[in-house]
Amino acid sequence: MELLEERIQRDGVVKSGDVLKVDSFLNHQMDVELFTEMAREWHRHFADKPINKILTIEASGIGIAAIAGALFGVPVVFAKKSQSINLDGTVYCTRIQSFTHGKVFDVIVSKKFIGPDDHVLLIDDFMANGCAMNGLIEVCEYAGATIEGIGIAIEKGFQQGGDSLRERGYDLCSLAIVDAMDPDTGTVTFR
Amino acid sequence: MELLEERIQRDGVVKSGDVLKVDSFLNHQMDVELFTEMAREWHRHFADKPINKILTIEASGIGIAAIAGALFGVPVVFAKKSQSINLDGTVYCTRIQSFTHGKVFDVIVSKKFIGPDDHVLLIDDFMANGCAMNGLIEVCEYAGATIEGIGIAIEKGFQQGGDSLRERGYDLCSLAIVDAMDPDTGTVTFR
Repeated sequence: MELLEERIQRDGVVKSGDVLKVDSFLNHQMDVELFTEMAREWHRHFADKPINKILTIEASGIGIAAIAGALFGVPVVFAKKSQSINLDGTVYCTRIQSFTHGKVFDVIVSKKFIGPDDHVLLIDDFMANGCAMNGLIEVCEYAGATIEGIGIAIEKGFQQGGDSLRERGYDLCSLAIVDAMDPDTGTVTFR
Repeated sequence: MELLEERIQRDGVVKSGDVLKVDSFLNHQMDVELFTEMAREWHRHFADKPINKILTIEASGIGIAAIAGALFGVPVVFAKKSQSINLDGTVYCTRIQSFTHGKVFDVIVSKKFIGPDDHVLLIDDFMANGCAMNGLIEVCEYAGATIEGIGIAIEKGFQQGGDSLRERGYDLCSLAIVDAMDPDTGTVTFR
């Protein structure tokens, strides 16, 4: 998606350790007009799928998923990353390792909000090694829900998450795939 | 706001310990069509304010704030609740106690995304004792930003957060104010 690639070129900052900072428009400050264009792209890509629910994971997936939910006209569920007293005991839970935070945490979704009748679009801001997305996939499998597709804003193509999901047959729509980043020059190369 | 009060009556669950569960439409599963109506209500209320940014706090404020940002046509910043390796050292940081989680955590906003030129609308899903909101207010004060108003979905009127902010002169627009809840009967009384 040209608009997103241009924005990454302009406002993204390449840091050492394979970190791409896009906090000025994606995951700290959110450019919701850009999110609307991103949602339109997913809506075109998944037009023939009977999607009735969007599932994402807190925190930075929520804004993108909410805007997409408004466009698709479906409710959005966000998985929680730690047990809260506001959650019932009746939850799906799986454990993942975060690339960004470098730690292990639980992914929790109430059983009330996802089930065998759901046709789910999974959405997240980033895909690196795919751990967060695999957590959401596991939740859908526990629930017996159908995964209609996966929408990612920025995929780090030099890590294995995206290609691994494609090999497993998922309909993955990444709006920008970064194949290389150079922290010395700040150059970002897209697939 | 009648639509939200009706929804709380229908789908909210009153639990002991002053807990109102609204996870089926507000803070786990999100009814983004309802969020759009909530955003319209805030847009009417704050129509004469020169709002150029919305500030909220992760995680459950983000969806509501994103939908509001799309309607107001302004970027949305969400405060983070713990230090992330993706944040620069140049941040505003204040410490708050969470009612829901019963623990203390840091509220962090990058200095890049809020400053003296900003006219901010603060948005959150819940207001109880007001600790989270006071954290966001402190961040705005550090930044020299102007707080144009505060939009809350559900205020617990029997706790002090909302009234305390009104006494301090803030333009607080709570869409539903719960004055009493009875966990035995499930009754919710609105102001």
